[in-house]
Amino acid sequence: MKINSNFLNLKDSYLFATVGRKTTEFKKAHPDKKVIRLSIGDVTRPLAPVVIGAMHRAVDDMSRKETFKGYGPDQYCYGYEALIDSIKGSYARKGIALESAEVFVSDGAKSDLGNILDLFAPENTVLVPDPVYPVYVDTNIMAGRKILYADANLANGFLPMPDFSVDADIIYLCSPNNPTGAAYTKEQLKEWVRYATEKNAVLLYDAAYEYFITDPALARSIYQIEGAKKCAIEFCSYSKTAGFTGVRCGYTVVPQELVREGVSLNKLWARRQSTKFNGVSYITQMGAAAVFTEEGEKEISENLDYYRENAKIIANCLDGLGIFYTGGKNSPYIWMKCPLGMDSWEFFDYLLENANVVGTPGSGFGKNGEGFFRLTAFGTKEDTQEACSRIELLLRK
Amino acid sequence: MKINSNFLNLKDSYLFATVGRKTTEFKKAHPDKKVIRLSIGDVTRPLAPVVIGAMHRAVDDMSRKETFKGYGPDQYCYGYEALIDSIKGSYARKGIALESAEVFVSDGAKSDLGNILDLFAPENTVLVPDPVYPVYVDTNIMAGRKILYADANLANGFLPMPDFSVDADIIYLCSPNNPTGAAYTKEQLKEWVRYATEKNAVLLYDAAYEYFITDPALARSIYQIEGAKKCAIEFCSYSKTAGFTGVRCGYTVVPQELVREGVSLNKLWARRQSTKFNGVSYITQMGAAAVFTEEGEKEISENLDYYRENAKIIANCLDGLGIFYTGGKNSPYIWMKCPLGMDSWEFFDYLLENANVVGTPGSGFGKNGEGFFRLTAFGTKEDTQEACSRIELLLRK
Repeated sequence: MKINSNFLNLKDSYLFATVGRKTTEFKKAHPDKKVIRLSIGDVTRPLAPVVIGAMHRAVDDMSRKETFKGYGPDQYCYGYEALIDSIKGSYARKGIALESAEVFVSDGAKSDLGNILDLFAPENTVLVPDPVYPVYVDTNIMAGRKILYADANLANGFLPMPDFSVDADIIYLCSPNNPTGAAYTKEQLKEWVRYATEKNAVLLYDAAYEYFITDPALARSIYQIEGAKKCAIEFCSYSKTAGFTGVRCGYTVVPQELVREGVSLNKLWARRQSTKFNGVSYITQMGAAAVFTEEGEKEISENLDYYRENAKIIANCLDGLGIFYTGGKNSPYIWMKCPLGMDSWEFFDYLLENANVVGTPGSGFGKNGEGFFRLTAFGTKEDTQEACSRIELLLRK
Repeated sequence: MKINSNFLNLKDSYLFATVGRKTTEFKKAHPDKKVIRLSIGDVTRPLAPVVIGAMHRAVDDMSRKETFKGYGPDQYCYGYEALIDSIKGSYARKGIALESAEVFVSDGAKSDLGNILDLFAPENTVLVPDPVYPVYVDTNIMAGRKILYADANLANGFLPMPDFSVDADIIYLCSPNNPTGAAYTKEQLKEWVRYATEKNAVLLYDAAYEYFITDPALARSIYQIEGAKKCAIEFCSYSKTAGFTGVRCGYTVVPQELVREGVSLNKLWARRQSTKFNGVSYITQMGAAAVFTEEGEKEISENLDYYRENAKIIANCLDGLGIFYTGGKNSPYIWMKCPLGMDSWEFFDYLLENANVVGTPGSGFGKNGEGFFRLTAFGTKEDTQEACSRIELLLRK
């Protein structure tokens, strides 16, 4: 028996563990200090009332013989039509028409972003932005694929554009980006679609944060770009959109027009999912189906606005201090340049010790993250305000 | 860009589609006949009240800032301790001690049975019983592995034993079996553990139906066999145990002692899951945690007994007719020899036309299924009784 030895090439990430350990140690040494965490990558606002109501009703359905639901419907890989229709409605409001068979309901974008790789041969070359969400890199290391990096940096505002001299088969884009908060305009994405088309590549477009976008120049879906249905798969999530990080529901769009080597990737993914997956809880699906209703959109907007307001507080603080950052608008993440010439971990220690504020060192997201620092908008408004007052006081000196 | 061409080697299965089409056509042609489906592979009884109560409380938790839950706990790959403890309790009652870090909560055994293959090199040889649940074969075809079959047939009572002259690296066992209902004794499994140990292979033990077992000579877990922790991974599910087919929750045990090529498979699986998975809904986990409580076990027993009673009705009917079958006891499945020398599809048509009863042709589960037929206990008692009366009337002639 041979193990998959590619696993041995994975590097252990101590980023969040080290952040946690240092924070705990500081608190222990300074029990009188109130430490504020602007490092939270998880949502903190409760689920919208319309979602809660739908879930209670779905639980009740499961309690009665007459309304009990077993395996989800076969037709669309276990996705209920009510949910798929509501997702199609959300797309329609962005000007995108989808067929039901193009929408796949899953337990979250992270699962699908990893599992989608089953469809591709190990020999493909992968292009990943740096810095980025570590899952893109690790899942491809597990499969033994060659990985190239597209440098995101100060020069390009952390939005790398395609280099046509580089050949890639699988391209990851995340917009608004985690960790940088930077979001592509529709104009910029046209270039990426042109590149993917020319290289006969497939774009894996992670749109998990698209509901934070309010600027109409920015793309909310890759399918707002002409030709994208022939080269892109899009991954979406209710996690940040509707606070579903603990509920687990996402959706992936694989267009019928997306064909490689004469084979429909839509059909391949349907076969993958019907063989290695068995759908999402009926209760979760009914809750998710309530999100993109008129009432649901109104209620999730209140939560999104709450986080947007936090992002703005942080952005205003950095503006006042004259510190470069990306994100903050159209994104829950703020990616700041470390001041005073510090590297990422130096600034982490400096901020923790002097302002009792915790963030995430950018170097943990890739080599281009060195010298940068991630703050997030997922805390409470009060904490965010207080943290910013402390940061101002510290860095204005 | 190259697709994973192994997908092109998959055969489309028309088994359940054809069963459905033939049934629909018959109903259309005979609107006056009451057709009874003993082909149902899905549960029909509602969730236990204790599960419903736990789920309602969990939904309420998600509605309040103070009790809201985001991402599941990192420590055990997003499994909540209350759930993991209850699973350990269920194992303890079978005489098996597990550590928390050996229990992985998932969205179902089907997902894990497919995803576990990420840990193994494509060059491994796989041994699969025939007939069997088609997922074992299809997931390995997708990965391009060589597949050998262990013949299950009349001669071995559909419980194949190891052939030490055959070399295999990954071995699937499913007990009680789907589709045959046959279940291994502890004595028989000792041989399989001895074989896996000698071959340095890994046993993938699918125990999805173990809660149907009442005979103490039969194994409820592979870990009831000495040495199994050094060679086996066990897959369990709340689907049939507690009616969770539409809720999606399972658990997989990867023992710390299971090491291959000097690498802990427990650590590999933890890395796989933390990279390509993000846990199961808090609501689902709280519902599942109620299953293996004292009250929960009592309530699920009532549903299990209901299905067991149906299985007994079918078994008694076949006993009276002198027809060979496996399962029926310790299993929700009854695997019968087709009477009158008919093949599987001939008997399907004969039974549908003359008794208006639908079953599943055994040939759909592998070559050794030809000439056999699967009936299930997941219908109502009334329908099961009526179907059996009709079968008796038809076959006694």
